Amino acid sequence: MTYENLTLHTDKYQINMMYAHWIHGTHESKAVFEVFFRKLPFGNGYAVFAGLQRIVEYVNSLGFDDDCIRYLQEQEENYDPRFLEELRSFRFTGNLSSVEEGTIVFPNEPLIRVEGKIFEAQLLETAILNFMNFQTLIATKASRIRQVAPNDILMEFGTRRAQEADAAIWGARAAYLAGFDATSNMRAGMLFGIPSKGTHAHSWVQDHDSEEESFYRFAAALPDQVTLLVDTYDTLRSGVPHAIRVAQSMEREGKRMGGIRLDSGDLAYLSKTARTMLDEAGLNYIKIVASNDLDENIMFNLKAQGAQIDSWGVGTQLITAADQPALGGVYKLVAREKEGAFEPVIKISGNPEKVSTPGVKDVYRLVSRETGRAEADYVTLAGEPEAMRGEKLKLYDKTHPYLYKYVEGYDAVPLLRPIYENGKQVYRLPDLDQIRRYHRQQLELFWPEYLRKLNPAVYLVDISARAWQLKMELIQKHTV
Amino acid sequence: MTYENLTLHTDKYQINMMYAHWIHGTHESKAVFEVFFRKLPFGNGYAVFAGLQRIVEYVNSLGFDDDCIRYLQEQEENYDPRFLEELRSFRFTGNLSSVEEGTIVFPNEPLIRVEGKIFEAQLLETAILNFMNFQTLIATKASRIRQVAPNDILMEFGTRRAQEADAAIWGARAAYLAGFDATSNMRAGMLFGIPSKGTHAHSWVQDHDSEEESFYRFAAALPDQVTLLVDTYDTLRSGVPHAIRVAQSMEREGKRMGGIRLDSGDLAYLSKTARTMLDEAGLNYIKIVASNDLDENIMFNLKAQGAQIDSWGVGTQLITAADQPALGGVYKLVAREKEGAFEPVIKISGNPEKVSTPGVKDVYRLVSRETGRAEADYVTLAGEPEAMRGEKLKLYDKTHPYLYKYVEGYDAVPLLRPIYENGKQVYRLPDLDQIRRYHRQQLELFWPEYLRKLNPAVYLVDISARAWQLKMELIQKHTV
Repeated sequence: MTYENLTLHTDKYQINMMYAHWIHGTHESKAVFEVFFRKLPFGNGYAVFAGLQRIVEYVNSLGFDDDCIRYLQEQEENYDPRFLEELRSFRFTGNLSSVEEGTIVFPNEPLIRVEGKIFEAQLLETAILNFMNFQTLIATKASRIRQVAPNDILMEFGTRRAQEADAAIWGARAAYLAGFDATSNMRAGMLFGIPSKGTHAHSWVQDHDSEEESFYRFAAALPDQVTLLVDTYDTLRSGVPHAIRVAQSMEREGKRMGGIRLDSGDLAYLSKTARTMLDEAGLNYIKIVASNDLDENIMFNLKAQGAQIDSWGVGTQLITAADQPALGGVYKLVAREKEGAFEPVIKISGNPEKVSTPGVKDVYRLVSRETGRAEADYVTLAGEPEAMRGEKLKLYDKTHPYLYKYVEGYDAVPLLRPIYENGKQVYRLPDLDQIRRYHRQQLELFWPEYLRKLNPAVYLVDISARAWQLKMELIQKHTV
Repeated sequence: MTYENLTLHTDKYQINMMYAHWIHGTHESKAVFEVFFRKLPFGNGYAVFAGLQRIVEYVNSLGFDDDCIRYLQEQEENYDPRFLEELRSFRFTGNLSSVEEGTIVFPNEPLIRVEGKIFEAQLLETAILNFMNFQTLIATKASRIRQVAPNDILMEFGTRRAQEADAAIWGARAAYLAGFDATSNMRAGMLFGIPSKGTHAHSWVQDHDSEEESFYRFAAALPDQVTLLVDTYDTLRSGVPHAIRVAQSMEREGKRMGGIRLDSGDLAYLSKTARTMLDEAGLNYIKIVASNDLDENIMFNLKAQGAQIDSWGVGTQLITAADQPALGGVYKLVAREKEGAFEPVIKISGNPEKVSTPGVKDVYRLVSRETGRAEADYVTLAGEPEAMRGEKLKLYDKTHPYLYKYVEGYDAVPLLRPIYENGKQVYRLPDLDQIRRYHRQQLELFWPEYLRKLNPAVYLVDISARAWQLKMELIQKHTV
């Protein structure tokens, strides 16, 4: 399984549609798709966009090699051999715009816009959604966790429970860009430059004649800020006293222990008692690390109980986003080429929230010049001039139009940035530390009411009157 | 990101422990680890073991290349250069036994046993758990779904919501081995030989002047058993009537439409009404495919309502195991080499269910010769002869010893099979269709009461009196 080509990382129906377009000679006509999600995960008030680096690497690497072609040939005897020849020269030649990684985003606004030949744009759907959905989900979860422990060390420890190998590394990256400090996964560390951290397992202790001996030996091998796991046999009667003895012996050699780790039991009680024991032994510099199925709610409660934890290893709940393990992002056709121009299209649905918003769109963040805070996001048809010019806008809830507000004195910051133009990458991927800084700046744009983890205020994402009217017209057209 | 070497797909603490062993010259002493999980997912009565192929490919590909070594060097200036040299010649030279893929398994029995140099066995932990936990989880979820639709076509449609690319393909494989019929993911189809299936998206319909035209064109391009998606505008007023017209026109050319797909709305009502419309038009051969956030509970309820669905596309809920997205499998040291023999070791815990069961163990499935059904699984210390000889056994609940039963007249089928001996692969990986057949045979071993999806009977996994006594002795030893 060393076959790394991701070109067939797509649903079969994409290839079938590409084939049907090719048969009818419509495969080069242009289409515009937009990516968005309808609902925020975890009851959170915002999401943290991630996945763009992976998408760019994927688009750049696309290509149907001999293995792909042979497989398609065997799969579908129907496929005309000339179609397979056409695939051999496949590459993405269109435009792609995207929100940048680390941006705070909201439901029902375009996050990625793909404009290209239908033949190309259709292929990309599945992989773009797969990458964006997962990485945005984990970045959002990580952001919630960072919020309850703003000044602590946060480590992503989830590889053993991640949903396979890619989830481990891309999840570690998503967590880091949203504010985590480190990962335990060495491959993620190597590929993305994330600091990697780790202590030792129970097996280290079990594999020695005594816990104390095992601690001495581990500290001798890795003297630099060593952290000892103290719950293999009995945290307070055995682990902590042994760690204290080792720390005192290290002191006599002029060295300092980094920390102790608690991985089971009552973390509030154990951490407070261990803190007291360490402090009474004059070891107030030793940090306490906790792990064991932590999430933002458990951490919040532990802190409320006065738990003395300096550093958190967060695994399963983060890396799988266990309380909602999928973001429902979709990739919807919003316009098709017809007689040389783009014609907006819609999808109606028995589920009202699934009716799509037609037309090629832009999205702006309206940032008050007075407060420096974001007032609303504003979705327009592409090129509508009012927001760009900073004109006074009336924003109103389209289903409850008596709910409205006027905004003026704002900067309209476009959220979609050009990534590809005519197939050429025009965007330089920032490095991870730049993305982390940008993400922190993004957070500062928002009033805390939008960011709190429980019952956040709903941030306004409005669509322009023109975009709304177009939607109503198309609904009319298809329901006569 | 084409760096495929998985050797650093591990937690940093493994490398730290390997280093500490190397420093103290204990890295070649032997150790035995066992993999097990403590709790079944989804309230299910069993799990379906999967992940072995991935583990074998991983073990066979292990190797610290220049990139790995350079990274470790930069990471930890502490590491002695001779340690890094030692890593260069790293390979797995130990023994590994495992349950076979497709086996029905239960909590607290050894599923994988690794016996080797501590230096080697420690490295493997993280990746083995990552692969086994995810794939076993998805195979188990798929098995539940198969159970509510024993005679229908089941398709895995989850790639866009999967937790990154590896989860999509290995999840598709896990679903297939536990009874799914197909996947939409082309790469999974190509790599594993899983049948791939797909229809078309709403975008196909939106990208034409009318729905009817789009149907004609799709059917013309892919006449072989074409399936049309009928809910883009209005399922019953537009989609189904258009599909009927296309099917009738196909009939005049001697062709047959395969199916229609419903992807939103009230699937019970829509499928029944669509079935009637199709039948009245003489198209009773056209199948109805449904998708839209399905899981075993929704499917079970739809069937109870008489929904007329022949084929199910199952996405998010399956590929993320959404109601419990992680299996908590662990890898625990059970014995260490001491003076040339294996000494059993234990881990105590403030959480009683986390106390490990010491000693190198075997596990047998006791299958009644009379009924051909499994009576219990029996965990012994390695080499205990009673079960192997088929002797009469008293199985009893170790915490409630008045709950007991005698078993005799059974075959004791060992569940652990040798996969590696002295680093050499001695097991030939079966192909996927063999695994599927084996899995179906496994299901037939169990009374239906153990398999039902709601409130299943608890299948007995007993440990031998000797293994239990050893555990009690070691608990004593560490708590005096």
